[in-house]
Formats: sequence, C-alpha cells, structure tokens
Amino acid sequence: MHAALAFLAFQAVTAPAPPITPNDVIAAAPASAWTRIADDALLVIELMGGARVVIQLAPGFAPAHVANIRALARARWWDGESVYRVQDNYVVQWGDPTDKKPLPGGVAARPPAEYERDAQGLAIRPLDAPDAYAPRTGFVEGWPVAVRDGRASLTHCYAMVGVARDPAPDTGSGSALYTVIGHAPRQLDRNIALVGRIVAGMEALSALPRGTGDLGLYRTPGERLPIISVRLASDMPAAARPAFEVMDSAAPAFADYVRLRANRHDGFFAVPAGGVDICNVPVPVRAVR
Amino acid sequence: MHAALAFLAFQAVTAPAPPITPNDVIAAAPASAWTRIADDALLVIELMGGARVVIQLAPGFAPAHVANIRALARARWWDGESVYRVQDNYVVQWGDPTDKKPLPGGVAARPPAEYERDAQGLAIRPLDAPDAYAPRTGFVEGWPVAVRDGRASLTHCYAMVGVARDPAPDTGSGSALYTVIGHAPRQLDRNIALVGRIVAGMEALSALPRGTGDLGLYRTPGERLPIISVRLASDMPAAARPAFEVMDSAAPAFADYVRLRANRHDGFFAVPAGGVDICNVPVPVRAVR
Repeated sequence: MHAALAFLAFQAVTAPAPPITPNDVIAAAPASAWTRIADDALLVIELMGGARVVIQLAPGFAPAHVANIRALARARWWDGESVYRVQDNYVVQWGDPTDKKPLPGGVAARPPAEYERDAQGLAIRPLDAPDAYAPRTGFVEGWPVAVRDGRASLTHCYAMVGVARDPAPDTGSGSALYTVIGHAPRQLDRNIALVGRIVAGMEALSALPRGTGDLGLYRTPGERLPIISVRLASDMPAAARPAFEVMDSAAPAFADYVRLRANRHDGFFAVPAGGVDICNVPVPVRAVR
Repeated sequence: MHAALAFLAFQAVTAPAPPITPNDVIAAAPASAWTRIADDALLVIELMGGARVVIQLAPGFAPAHVANIRALARARWWDGESVYRVQDNYVVQWGDPTDKKPLPGGVAARPPAEYERDAQGLAIRPLDAPDAYAPRTGFVEGWPVAVRDGRASLTHCYAMVGVARDPAPDTGSGSALYTVIGHAPRQLDRNIALVGRIVAGMEALSALPRGTGDLGLYRTPGERLPIISVRLASDMPAAARPAFEVMDSAAPAFADYVRLRANRHDGFFAVPAGGVDICNVPVPVRAVR
C-alpha cells in the first residue's frame, strides 16, 4: 500500500459496516445528535485575499465578553484592522495592532473575569481520563471543560478563541482576540477569558507566516493580514449567512465518538491508546445549508 | 499597557532577579546543564526557497530506523523529493510522493517495530502529572517519554518526527517522515516509530499551506515544496555544520524549568496551573557556534 496515503488510511469511511472510527460515528450520527448554532453566536471574519473564518461564540461561559464582541462587530470596529501576531506552536492574534482605537459605545472596557462558571446544575459529560491540569474534564453544551472546586472552565484546546489582555487584574475587552495554533497551552486556563472556537477557516490563520518579532508579532505593518470585515451571522442577509451544527455532547453518538477517539482499533492501529485527553477530542461541527 | 504586547509579556526576561519564568531558567542554566548533540544525530534539510530545517535524531530509541535515515541521507535519496502533505492540527509529511523510488543499498525495507524500549536501567526524570495515555511520563536523555509496563516510548509532541508507514505490521523504512504540527496526537504513540524532533526551522513546515486533498495531501505536484538536499551534519564541511545543545533532562536546571512550566507565578498569571503535561514541556534546545 502507498505509504504516503496509508499513514492515515484509517480515516477513510468504510461502507455499511458498524462504526469503527470516530469519523464513521460523525457520518452516521442522527439529526437528533446535532444542534444548530444560533446566528448571533457565529462571528464571520472576511480576510484580505478571500479567506473566511467563522467563530462559534460561547455566551454561556463568557456572557459579558461575548456581549462586547457582538457590539464590536455591530460597530464594524474590526473592519480595516488586521492579524498582527503569529507565534509558532502558540497563538495567532488579531485586532488593532496599535491598541489605540477607541472602543465603541456599549463595550465594557473592563468586563468581569469570566474564567470559570459554577459547575452546579451543569450537565457535564465527564471524560474518564487523567488530566495534568484539573481533577476532572468533560463536555458541557458542546464545549470542552475542566472542573475544579465546583467550577467549570473552558480549556485552551486547538482553535479555541480567547481574549488578549494586559497583566491581571485586567480581563481584556474582547477587541483583541487570539486562537490556539499548537499544542494546548492549558496553563492559560482560568487566566484568560475563552469566548469561543473557530469552526471554519482555521487554516487561513494557522498557516500564516510566523512573526519574527517578540512574541511572534509581525515586525512591519506590511506583514499584517488585513481584516476586511467582521460580522455576526445574524446581521448578514439571510441568504448569505453561514450555518453550522455542533454535535450535542449529551447525545449517545458523542459518547461513541469519545470512546473511539480513545480506543482506535481500525487497521492502522496496532495498540489502542486506552485513553484520550480533553483537547484530543474536538467536538464535531459541520456546515449545513 | 499595550494589549498586543502584553498578552505574553511574562516571556520578557527580567534583569538580575532570581529566575521566575521558564525562559529565565534557560538563560541562566550553566554550561554543565547542556549536552552537545552529535553531528551524526543532526539531519539538515535544505528546502526550496532557502529555509533550513534541522532534526535531532533519536538513535537511543529507534536505532534501526535512524540507521536507515543515515543511509538515505548519505545516498542523497531525498534530494529532489518534496514535502507533499500538510494536514492542519496534525502532521506535515515529506519524502517521495509516488512511493516508487527504490531504496538504496543498506536500507532495511522493514526494520523492527521500535515503538518502545526497555525502561529498566534508564535514568528517567519523572514528570509528576497525571496523563491520559500512560501511568507515567518523564524525560530520558532529553526526550519526552511515556512509561507503561516497564517500557518507555517517545511521545508524539509538537515537532516530534516519525516514520510514515502502511497498515501494521509494516513499520516504514524511514524514507517517508512526518512531524507533528498541532495538538499532540498521542494515540499514535506505540503505533509508529518516532525517530527525532525538529530543533530548528519548524516554522518552515508548520506554516505551509494546508493540503486540500484527502489526509491533507497536496492535490497537484505544483503545490509540493521541493527538497534541495538532506544531509547529516557529520557529512557536511566542518565550517558549514550547524551545532546544537540540548538541555540535560537530569540537570537541576531542567527540574527548575519543569517546575516553572507547571507553576507560572509571574505577572501575567493570576492562577498557576499546578501541573503540566508532557507535551507542554518542550526540552530546551539551543544553537551554538
């Protein structure tokens, strides 16, 4: 067999056999396993050059920051700003590189520190795996969380989106955002407000040239990638809105998905791992028409 | 303070205060904390466009595969081949995209499955943190390992280099190699031979455009990034050889480094993590003259 292709041949979906791979589970999941993402929880970034990035916002975890982000989008505050920082195995960051542009009305300059929420009453699907950062991890409303002392915090997994900030106790307004492009920097959990995740177009950010300045900042303005516009899907014409569904982390299909992520037994794998960490279980998201 | 810069301002090295960040520890580590990497354990890849990637080989873990890789480099087997696969949050792969080029003499087509080695007698610096994949993790000879049932295996952390292969029981010759460009795919541990890690030039691979074919393969030959040459440093003229040192994972400085990776208490951090996972402790490597 062709080594170049075979390395991940296990990803190929087999025909009508019982689900054996995580991708099989996704393909076979019933409609009831999927939840439509609300239009006002989708943030659409159009970049110079034609690429589009779509972020799912997490108002359940960071309501004040998400309110700010919605107000910034409605004020078209990011239009003409840029992606100005790309640090390898860490983050890509965008917004106003001068940090001097005034915030529009209705945006709180110093929202509360929404780093955790009360875990009481949350329907958490636990991930039965040891974690280096918290006693428990799991999934809530389709989001990866760590749980400690009765509090749930979103985890800094690949493609999660957070709010850049000054040293504590500042929390950041949400005008400067970043996404994770490497191994999960979980040390940032509970230190920064996570506000969502990228559900489409990640490669338009993750494949950008790395910045050669301190912290991966681009050294010259010409290196920055201009942002054409940032809009909530709910503010776009209905016909132009993207639409996405996320797998319900309470659905039986999601349990199958997690189990298979932890125990690959298809052709390629000689030894199943027997476990999986929270950031190695990306919650399935799909575009819908 | 400037939010764009401040997000990671903790990385700035403070003046002569006691070490408080992992980077402080690296900067202050004595010469005795560093080990020179042997010239025949450095593989130098020159890419079209001028970028250079340097790999540290791991003969202690995969001696037969490393012997193959050395023979392939000495036969100039990779010269004129290419990087042909880039899958986001997963791997970049290079070699012969047609998988038809004959192997040179002295290269074993089917080396043994060097996925683990006996942990008896190894000086393992344990990492005191729960891990989803193995009962214990730690460091051996400057490499990250997971330990299970008396066997130590290298872990699929960011920038680690592995041998692409067909479905088991094939082990791959080493002619097709990949590196990890996203969250650690630890499910590959003990299923693939890891043979080293990238110690310089990672961004020349991680920032490549993602392939749009299956498994991230480039759809057309024109998308591939040509490889000009691959050489062992030991086969290069002495004046042209790169030279690197790796921090000795048995050195006291390394213990300080790990402790600070797990417990950031510098300005930016309000809440130290209290733990760190094996792939979030990149072993320090530095270029030397």
